[in-house]
Formats: sequence, structure tokens, C-alpha cells
Amino acid sequence: MIQASICTIGNEILIGQVVDTNSSRIASALEESGIRVIRMLSIGDDREEILNNLRNELSQSDIVITTGGLGPTKDDITKGVLAELSGSTGYVEHAGQLAIVRDILHSRGLDMLDSNRAQALVPDRCEVIPNHLGTAPIMVFRFPEESFNATLYALPGVPFEAVGAIPEVLKDIRANYPLTHILHRSLMVYGMAESALSEFIAPWEDALPKDMHLAYLPHPLTGIRLRLSIYGGSQEEQESRAGEQIARLKEMLSNKVYSDQDDTLEATLGRLFKSAGMTLSAAESCTGGEISHLITSVPGSSAYYLGSVTSYAVSVKERVLGVPADTIERFGVVSSEVAAAMAEGVRRVTGSDYAVSTTGLAGPDGDACNPVGTVWIGVAGPSGVKTLKKHFRHDRKRNIQRFAAEALDFLRLRVLEDLSN
Amino acid sequence: MIQASICTIGNEILIGQVVDTNSSRIASALEESGIRVIRMLSIGDDREEILNNLRNELSQSDIVITTGGLGPTKDDITKGVLAELSGSTGYVEHAGQLAIVRDILHSRGLDMLDSNRAQALVPDRCEVIPNHLGTAPIMVFRFPEESFNATLYALPGVPFEAVGAIPEVLKDIRANYPLTHILHRSLMVYGMAESALSEFIAPWEDALPKDMHLAYLPHPLTGIRLRLSIYGGSQEEQESRAGEQIARLKEMLSNKVYSDQDDTLEATLGRLFKSAGMTLSAAESCTGGEISHLITSVPGSSAYYLGSVTSYAVSVKERVLGVPADTIERFGVVSSEVAAAMAEGVRRVTGSDYAVSTTGLAGPDGDACNPVGTVWIGVAGPSGVKTLKKHFRHDRKRNIQRFAAEALDFLRLRVLEDLSN
Repeated sequence: MIQASICTIGNEILIGQVVDTNSSRIASALEESGIRVIRMLSIGDDREEILNNLRNELSQSDIVITTGGLGPTKDDITKGVLAELSGSTGYVEHAGQLAIVRDILHSRGLDMLDSNRAQALVPDRCEVIPNHLGTAPIMVFRFPEESFNATLYALPGVPFEAVGAIPEVLKDIRANYPLTHILHRSLMVYGMAESALSEFIAPWEDALPKDMHLAYLPHPLTGIRLRLSIYGGSQEEQESRAGEQIARLKEMLSNKVYSDQDDTLEATLGRLFKSAGMTLSAAESCTGGEISHLITSVPGSSAYYLGSVTSYAVSVKERVLGVPADTIERFGVVSSEVAAAMAEGVRRVTGSDYAVSTTGLAGPDGDACNPVGTVWIGVAGPSGVKTLKKHFRHDRKRNIQRFAAEALDFLRLRVLEDLSN
Repeated sequence: MIQASICTIGNEILIGQVVDTNSSRIASALEESGIRVIRMLSIGDDREEILNNLRNELSQSDIVITTGGLGPTKDDITKGVLAELSGSTGYVEHAGQLAIVRDILHSRGLDMLDSNRAQALVPDRCEVIPNHLGTAPIMVFRFPEESFNATLYALPGVPFEAVGAIPEVLKDIRANYPLTHILHRSLMVYGMAESALSEFIAPWEDALPKDMHLAYLPHPLTGIRLRLSIYGGSQEEQESRAGEQIARLKEMLSNKVYSDQDDTLEATLGRLFKSAGMTLSAAESCTGGEISHLITSVPGSSAYYLGSVTSYAVSVKERVLGVPADTIERFGVVSSEVAAAMAEGVRRVTGSDYAVSTTGLAGPDGDACNPVGTVWIGVAGPSGVKTLKKHFRHDRKRNIQRFAAEALDFLRLRVLEDLSN
């Protein structure tokens, strides 16, 4: 198996100022292509450190990917050190990257300075993959068999440029290294704990052929992503075998599966509402705006999302949503009755087809009737209103996330139920 | 200067499934204590990899901190490998940690299994710092001068346990290594770009004594954290010298400074509203719930926050907030007039003292009158309503964050202005 190392260069990582997310994105892409990442490391903008560490990685890995240190300021020294490491004898100007630099500056209304022009200069021993997202080119250094017998890809440190470079880098790796084709298929599952899911599908998972592997990738907002990877056979065979297994999984898990691609609940809901030509609103108490934030994070959500009321105060529940004061008094704010009245209230004032609501206690304090982590969720729609109670044991931030995800999933299930009737 | 390496152990990092945030938190704490982090690395759950990499780090650093691989499952092998590395001859049960394990299981209503009990077993060559947040103890291995002359701290991988262990680890480091005391003071600044801020305070910064250092730590939601570090002198002298410099900075930056501790805009606003005994509401269009989410992420926000209306659809702006249809028609949805009417509308329907509003275009699409990234912010209060226009050039997600932060800061400035009149 081809082995890779990922190396982040920059003092800002070592002093803890910035969390390195590039390495994780790159690692995930390499892993999905069947390349084994043996080590990630972060080092400072220091010539000797860079030389020593890169020599060490090049002697142990087939592929070394660096990010960072390619900017125009004087503390960015990666390019010079790579020139030295590769035995380059000088720099050459890369016309393609220079044109990109000029375009980027032009679009910002800026003139080209010498420091900008220098961004298009590269060591004479490297090949260039133009970077259309920024000024620093992606540099490829091929170390021959008699030195390290490895390839080094130097990527910019700016996350969207580094991530944007991955497809071209993978293309180059595929052209130069024998990679097995691995097919990955995802199923997004909500409403089962990882352990329960694992137990439930164990008979199926245990019977998987040796060249198939299932990974569980949980996330508080999206549930569990099941990733099925197939290693053997031709691409065509992989597709058809994956299709069969995915179909069986879907049958077993039924409506716990909300998507068969890498996805989110809010994007799934968006497609559902868009295709049905229906509209949505929300009434939030304990989630404080998180549900509305998630729904509107989907581009184009204005096509089906009308809006929400965050009724943090009792008075807003009463005045804006029309929750009867005596419902609150009799059942308490955190109750099925109030969740139902909130959903019905926001549905009425916005005129939406569906409405989702939450009322609960995210923490740190509970109330006299309910412990921290309790939430009542309501969904009002053409067929009436339904409520659901849930309890989580996290901190405030995580409880808010879990409440919101749970509400989106309850809404999804209610809509599916209505559509199937 | 004492040197440190941070090593994350776990396959889930190397396949890109999890972003390592522990290293950054640990690095930041070490740096603030005057310890130089020379390298961070992530390696897999593999005996030889762990041994080779840790030997290498121990030979180059005074302090090596590992996280991960201490769980009860069979792929967690860090403890066994550390026993081998340290030349331990067996394991001993740590009574203090065993009591913690028992308490944790008890609070979850679970019985103690052998695998739980084994969590309290540690190699006989290590010292234990009890971990009150989880089942795996923090292990300290002191390698004598004749081997590596270094100390290794093994921390659990669960982020809140790893971060929770930092103070105790730093205490142990201070007791065993000669660290200079460094005093850090933070000032939170909003409303200036990093370059403009840097230029504005350059005369002051250039005149700083050699043993003082200023760092710029920008964040889209909190603006810029200025961190002043003082290296020389006694702790008492440091305090008084820091106080003088911070006072001068505050005077220069005036109301651009919103806090003199590591802080957020929403927490600052929370204190402001709480102490003034005033209430707040929000009307959001393009920010879609993010402002409300930020405000309610502050524990205790229900004391001053009444709620919000997310008026994504024009009909909700009209029906719930009472924005006149003719204002929308004449000036457009993204306008000063609509921002003002939204703020006044939500202030009226919730009965709050202040209200903040946003209307704009987060992207990906603009409209006929305004480019993507345009936002109008409104603040309504006892002294009337004011609006502000801003423009950003980010993607949808980042634009939403910047809009929300800008709105919170505009609100802060309006409230301060009113309070000073």
C-alpha cells in the first residue's frame, strides 16, 4: 500500500493559534483513495526543522504533502527550503500562475507588486500545478530512486486553497502510483446510537465479503454516516456489488436512513420540501435559533423556509405565538402541550405548511420538573400536531445541537409519514 | 527555553475522521507558560510506530505530551506501549482512579466490568495524576538523565478530558522545570481590520520594551484578540507594567475595545444588559437565526433575552413584524428602511428595550440591487432606531458569521452611546 505523510508548516499552528484542519481533509481524501497516511506532523517556519523533518518523511513515505509557508511575507520560507532540498539551482517564472496572480489582484483592484510577482517564481526542479484559488502555485517535487524515491506536493496553507488542490494532487498521484480503485458509498442514518446500530446490523456486517469494509462516522448534528468501502474487482463490479449491499442496508434500516450520499438532515429536508412544493417555519425556545440557522445554512432555503420565532421569554410564547397562558401554567413551559401550541402558533402566524418547535432545558440549570437535557419537540402540519420527548446528558452547547438535530429528524419522519398516506 | 512535543495517538486522526483539536489547546497552554512546542505529530494505534516516534520525540524534547489510545477497547494500546518504553515490570492498581471509575459508572447506573477496573491499572514506572473527568488516569513517566532526560505525560484523547488535564500537567511541569513566569493580558477589539489596527497602534507597539510582546489573534465572530505578554521581572512588576500598557491601549482604541479578558461579543452584551436590567430581542433575515443562536449560547441569557423572529419570507416581515409592504416595495428588502422597520417591529411585538435586525444577502446569489455580501443592520432602542450598511466578500457560511458579529457590535455601540447620554 502506498504510504503518505502530511506536514503542516507554520508557527501559528505550534503556538496553538490556529487549529490545523487541512491535514484532516487531506488525510480523508488520501484514505478514500487507498493511500495509507502513516504520520501527520506540524513544524515551525524554521529552515533546519523543515529540512530535517521533510528528509525524514521522504525516506519513510512514498508521498509527502506539505501545506503552508508559501505566502509572500518574510516568515514564509517553505519555497526556499524546498529549492534547497531538491537541489534546484535557481527559480523560474511560471507564466500560468503569473496570469492567475494578475487576475486575482485585478479583481481586487490592486496593482502587481514585486512580492506578488515573486509568488509565480518556482524552483527549477519542480513541476507546477496552477492554483486558481490563490497566488501561490502548487509545487510537485519528484525525488528519484537514488535519493528518496518519493514525491513531495507543496500546497498553500489557506484552507480553501489547500482543500481545493486535493483533486489535482490525487490525479497526479494516480498517474504515477499504482492505486487499487476503492469504491466508497455512504448511508446517512439518524435515530440510533452507534452501539445499537452496530448490534442491529451485525449479522449483515459479519457476512460482508473480505474485500468490503464498513466504517461508522458519527456526528452530533448529522447522526451516523455509514461508509461502505469495496476494495476488490473492477469498478463496474464494485458499483453493482455496492448497490446490492446498500439496498439491503436500506431495507434493514428503513426510514432511519435519510440519505444515500454524504449529507445533512437540513439539506435532506430542503430537497423534501422543495420537491413537494411545501413551506416550513420554526418556533424555538431552548435551541435559541440553532434550528433556523441550520435550515438557512442550505443555499436556496428561501424557496421553502418562511422563518421562525425564537420565544425565549414566556411573554413571547404568549404574545407572538399565541400559546395560552393557562397551558403554560397547567403543564409548565417544558411540556408536550407547550411544544404543540408553539408549533401550531408559528404555523398559523407564518402561514407555513409545516412547523417544528422545541422547548426544553439545555443547561446549565434545570427546573423544578425537568432535569437538564430534557426537550419536547413539536411538529404541526396538515394532518395535525405531534410531539416527542427526548433527554440528553451533554453540556449546553452539545445539548442545543442534539435538540436541533432531533427536531429536524422528527420533522422529516412526520413529513414522510404524511406523504405516504 | 524548555522544549515540548505533542503527540496524538489514534487511527481516527490519520484517516481524517476526526480533527485533532487537543494539540492546539495544549500548545496554546504551553506557549502561554513559556514552553516552546517544536513539533506536533499524529500517529496510528501501532506498537512500533508509537515506540519509534516517542523515542524520537523524547530524545529531542524536554517534555512530550501524548493524547489518546487509553480507552478500554482492544485498539487502545498506548498504555501497554508506554509500559514497555518505560521498562515497567508490571501494573499496579491506582486506588484513587479506581474510586473515580466506580463513581462515574455509578452515576450512569452501570456495574463495574473487568474492562472498567482495568482502566485504573497503570505501569509500575509511572506516577498518576487522577482524572476526575473520565476513567483513564493521566500518567507521568519521568525518564532519567541517563536515558532520555525528559518527562512524558499521557493524557486521554477525549477532548474535554485532555483539556481538563492541562492545569495539573502545567503544575507538574512548573514543579520540575525552571520556567520564567510570563504574564498574559488580553484585549478584545472589534471593528478594525488586522492591518489597520496594526498600523494604528504601531507607534505604541514599536516603543514596547524588549521583554514585552504583542500578538494579534483574529476570529470572524470575536474580532481581534490582542494578547500582551510580559517576560521579565517579578510577577508583581509584570502586573503593574501590564496594567499601564493595557490602559494606554484602551485609551487609544476607545470603544473599539469591548473587553479586557478573553471574551465574546455575546457574553459582553449579556453582562451589559444584565447589569442595566434591560431586555433584548432580534429580527433576522439573512443571518437566519445565527444572532439568536449566539446570544442564547451564553448561559443565563434568558434573564435579558426575550426572543427573535427570523423573517426569511417577505410575508413574515409583513405579518409578524409589521414591516409595511410599501416600504419593502419602495426600498427593497435589503435596505436601511426595512432593517429599521424589522428592528422596530420585533421590539414592539416582544416588548423589549432593545432590538437588533439584519437584512442582506449571504450568498451564493445576489439580487438586482445588491451584490452578495451586503447587509443592513438595524438597532431600535429607547432613543430611536439607527442602521448601518456593511459589505463582506466571503462564502455563505462566513458571511453569515460576519453579519452576525457586526450586528452584535453595532448593538453594543448603540447601547453604550445611550447609557453615556
